[in-house]
Amino acid sequence: MQIGLIGLGKMGGFMRDRIVAAGHEVVGYDTNPQVSDVATVQDLVTALTPPRVVWLMVPAGRITQSLVDELGGLLDKGDLVIDGGNSKFTDDAVHAEELGKKGIEFVDCGVSGGVWGKTEGYGLMAGGSDENIARVMPIFDALRPEGPRDEGFVHAGDVGAGHYVKMVHNGIEYGMMQAYAEGYELLEAKEIVKDVPAAFKAWTRGTVVRSWLQELMADALAKDATLEGIEGFVNDSGEGRWTVQEAVEYGVPMPVISSALYQRFFSRQGTASPAMKAVAALRNEFGGHEVTKKGEKPIVTDH
Amino acid sequence: MQIGLIGLGKMGGFMRDRIVAAGHEVVGYDTNPQVSDVATVQDLVTALTPPRVVWLMVPAGRITQSLVDELGGLLDKGDLVIDGGNSKFTDDAVHAEELGKKGIEFVDCGVSGGVWGKTEGYGLMAGGSDENIARVMPIFDALRPEGPRDEGFVHAGDVGAGHYVKMVHNGIEYGMMQAYAEGYELLEAKEIVKDVPAAFKAWTRGTVVRSWLQELMADALAKDATLEGIEGFVNDSGEGRWTVQEAVEYGVPMPVISSALYQRFFSRQGTASPAMKAVAALRNEFGGHEVTKKGEKPIVTDH
Amino acid sequence: MQIGLIGLGKMGGFMRDRIVAAGHEVVGYDTNPQVSDVATVQDLVTALTPPRVVWLMVPAGRITQSLVDELGGLLDKGDLVIDGGNSKFTDDAVHAEELGKKGIEFVDCGVSGGVWGKTEGYGLMAGGSDENIARVMPIFDALRPEGPRDEGFVHAGDVGAGHYVKMVHNGIEYGMMQAYAEGYELLEAKEIVKDVPAAFKAWTRGTVVRSWLQELMADALAKDATLEGIEGFVNDSGEGRWTVQEAVEYGVPMPVISSALYQRFFSRQGTASPAMKAVAALRNEFGGHEVTKKGEKPIVTDH
Amino acid sequence: MQIGLIGLGKMGGFMRDRIVAAGHEVVGYDTNPQVSDVATVQDLVTALTPPRVVWLMVPAGRITQSLVDELGGLLDKGDLVIDGGNSKFTDDAVHAEELGKKGIEFVDCGVSGGVWGKTEGYGLMAGGSDENIARVMPIFDALRPEGPRDEGFVHAGDVGAGHYVKMVHNGIEYGMMQAYAEGYELLEAKEIVKDVPAAFKAWTRGTVVRSWLQELMADALAKDATLEGIEGFVNDSGEGRWTVQEAVEYGVPMPVISSALYQRFFSRQGTASPAMKAVAALRNEFGGHEVTKKGEKPIVTDH
Repeated sequence: MQIGLIGLGKMGGFMRDRIVAAGHEVVGYDTNPQVSDVATVQDLVTALTPPRVVWLMVPAGRITQSLVDELGGLLDKGDLVIDGGNSKFTDDAVHAEELGKKGIEFVDCGVSGGVWGKTEGYGLMAGGSDENIARVMPIFDALRPEGPRDEGFVHAGDVGAGHYVKMVHNGIEYGMMQAYAEGYELLEAKEIVKDVPAAFKAWTRGTVVRSWLQELMADALAKDATLEGIEGFVNDSGEGRWTVQEAVEYGVPMPVISSALYQRFFSRQGTASPAMKAVAALRNEFGGHEVTKKGEKPIVTDH
Repeated sequence: MQIGLIGLGKMGGFMRDRIVAAGHEVVGYDTNPQVSDVATVQDLVTALTPPRVVWLMVPAGRITQSLVDELGGLLDKGDLVIDGGNSKFTDDAVHAEELGKKGIEFVDCGVSGGVWGKTEGYGLMAGGSDENIARVMPIFDALRPEGPRDEGFVHAGDVGAGHYVKMVHNGIEYGMMQAYAEGYELLEAKEIVKDVPAAFKAWTRGTVVRSWLQELMADALAKDATLEGIEGFVNDSGEGRWTVQEAVEYGVPMPVISSALYQRFFSRQGTASPAMKAVAALRNEFGGHEVTKKGEKPIVTDH
Repeated sequence: MQIGLIGLGKMGGFMRDRIVAAGHEVVGYDTNPQVSDVATVQDLVTALTPPRVVWLMVPAGRITQSLVDELGGLLDKGDLVIDGGNSKFTDDAVHAEELGKKGIEFVDCGVSGGVWGKTEGYGLMAGGSDENIARVMPIFDALRPEGPRDEGFVHAGDVGAGHYVKMVHNGIEYGMMQAYAEGYELLEAKEIVKDVPAAFKAWTRGTVVRSWLQELMADALAKDATLEGIEGFVNDSGEGRWTVQEAVEYGVPMPVISSALYQRFFSRQGTASPAMKAVAALRNEFGGHEVTKKGEKPIVTDH
Repeated sequence: MQIGLIGLGKMGGFMRDRIVAAGHEVVGYDTNPQVSDVATVQDLVTALTPPRVVWLMVPAGRITQSLVDELGGLLDKGDLVIDGGNSKFTDDAVHAEELGKKGIEFVDCGVSGGVWGKTEGYGLMAGGSDENIARVMPIFDALRPEGPRDEGFVHAGDVGAGHYVKMVHNGIEYGMMQAYAEGYELLEAKEIVKDVPAAFKAWTRGTVVRSWLQELMADALAKDATLEGIEGFVNDSGEGRWTVQEAVEYGVPMPVISSALYQRFFSRQGTASPAMKAVAALRNEFGGHEVTKKGEKPIVTDH
């Protein structure tokens, strides 16, 4: 089939390759003319034969919104837009309604797999009507990993459900990464453990903790056994936050995923953390405990 | 080679099968005469040709200790004992010293894989001298999964290092399980997600969270989509506790693994939780908030 | 001065007493005719001399909204409404705008102190314009505890700031209560500690942890030393949730307050916790660990 | 009565003043000759009339142990040693046994209050036999705050119980401080809150969160409204660690106090955190996410 693909960055570019390799036709648009097949979104729409299918693979939020707005003005009744970015699930209902007023269909699809997706295939989590999902299925089949369809693709529910499942997937990912990281730090601290990279490597087969992330951890440690070239500074991309906010909304206890998120927040603060300044100030007030003044080198005391 | 194996329960029995299948000779002892090759530990020692290798696969603590004591009196200089149970790493030094006084060698080995190990092989984490590890290597090779040795086996350091790595492995396992569980609960709570088992199944390929535990979660949900037949009551087996205590000892922040451990503790308390009784009592003191008296059915108020 | 007070429940009733005791005139309305001075909100508005001041002391959400709507139709330009309930701070802007369209002023005020406020005075956190705050100050002075004004009252900022500070106050309260509760549970568990109620009593003077909540904890334990008459089941009232959601929105690490909130959620689930069912199911999948079937009595195994 | 006091630092010195002010005789020893009454521990023992009472107010661990050893050699049967330092409760049994072999009595006493104790009195938590506690009671009465004895002193149980209650007290203190600190950080982050120091000040009377720590927080913010002169770097002194380790030992869920402890650990790591390096490395492996190389300035991306 034919598909328009907007956003040809790291993710979108690899996805184009995979869709083309499956025998489909892709008309791609990107603000970077070097990778773009057409000069404008208008050109992309013109190049597609109705009824059109257009896949958005661009940053969530403002950029996705402006493209939905633009496509709303360019596409025709019966065309279909898929948002494959990391949009918040609440945006999906808004986009579906906005496009729906013009008779344009909408599907949301969370895409997992990162830079490895090109060769391994992408894990896909889609939301929308049965008809719309069926219509895009050839593209889903091209993108997802080989093997049974239900092991790399889910039609999770109506519009928004795809991004919701992807959001929770990312929340779980935060928790798993932090679990491995905490284990790593303790192994690293313990003198009797002589070869931490080998321990992670050995967990690849037969163990309960084996996983793709664990293999990646072994790979990272094979390159830099003590991670000395890396700063312990971690951004977050939104889905972890939304997962925790949803959990709180629904009264779901979520200590592990929240903790993982908070460690990321904290990793960006260092000694500028207002909370830890407050704790330091309090200790000084009641106990005359040493406070590290700005610019001083802190002294770690024996305990 | 020839090996004595003490403990032929679920784990030990399967391990015997796997070692025998690799062409080695196993003399097994168990308190259950139906699975035991010999009548007593003394008989097992007699049946082995010196220098002997004896693998313990029994519960950590008292039972392991009494067998170490007994073997200390029966084995000869140059014999070797491997503790493959879930012993605390601090026990290993004690056992090595006790046996060492009699010239008996000691190796500790954490064994992962549960009931699946028989077919898939066991993840092995060993501690001890190079000579002793080399001596037991044929058995390690029989037990570990097929594939490169370093993907299913690690010689982690001297005595104790094997159980230490296994302890941390189990701590990570707690964190991962809780991460999946929290994600499951949120998906289950969200109305727009129509098929939670299918979501877990779909994460099997291509996603960042794919893992053996994730596949097991998909299997469990395939059998009972809402887990309605199961009580949310979870025991812990010691390694999670030791992991957290070690982290605290070494000043390693471990919020995720600790949270996972605490949820297990809490799952066993329910409304008998002294802490939550205290919070309920406090709310009553300052706000006249309703307290649920013993035997009353609690009322969940809108918030 | 003269004030209309809507909501004469436990909080509102005591507040009326305190305002009257300070020499002001209160016209009170409640749906309960036994405590109400007037028959309807319309009657209350009629009974007040313009420019009127009306204090709402009713449940947040739907009830507050409907009263704002009703007052918007009854009050005149230059009248002033104070929302003293536990409204979410985002509601304040909505209410201020809705009333503002008719020239009616708005102030929000968080009120702390519970049933003790009648005698001890209420901690007040207000948001609004300088003019509006000054206009209500005689009432604030009547409600707040004796002593310097700035030790029991804050004008925290413009509309919404009062409820925001109160929201954070309640979040902190959750954390403090849980801290005492965790300490209580550990003291209770430890055999060598012979008199836990006496320990809490002894913390009343001289210690770092002394506080009003600690005194209430001592009171509660004086009545029921092991809290055996109380179920460990705790509701939450919204502010804790909003605090955590705000923290996540702003990238503020909030592990303590989140944990306290989650323990409340969890206290209401018991063995019906979907997450802990999932952990139990997972353990069964990989290890053949015992699962407690619905209706069975769980067995706590030695670890 | 007469008492020997070893350790005349910030705590010990103030305690001497308070004991003397109550009419008792103190013979003080310190390694600093400027504050010491005698030249050696031997001289202190000689200066006291048997049966002697000697109060240790020195750092826990090595220093306390060496003084117990020394006093064991110098004191006579029927003398009594009180350890008022922050010793671990497990040390108490060891010290009691060591001294007991020579007929020397032992009492442990946790002392709270910091630099404010001199004027406000110290919160005291004692462990030991009824006879021994009674014997030291005049000193306890001199040190504790004015008011009823049971509001500033507890005889918590036999040897070790005093330090245990103090340990839990400090664990609770960690949790409370972190709760205030998290609330502070959120208030500081929120634009609509115009005066955070005033909010803390206003919580002094009438609110549920009022406490001594809250007053100290208000004091600290009065001096430095944004704590800009302080680094967010916080040491820990042992009791928090022991509290968490005990909780884990006893199966007590302790998420709040653990979180507070971990934030202190983390505050000392900054971007050198091995765990956060691991998370950063993992993100790079699967997603090509930017890793901050050592020495680079991290870029916080929009989410």
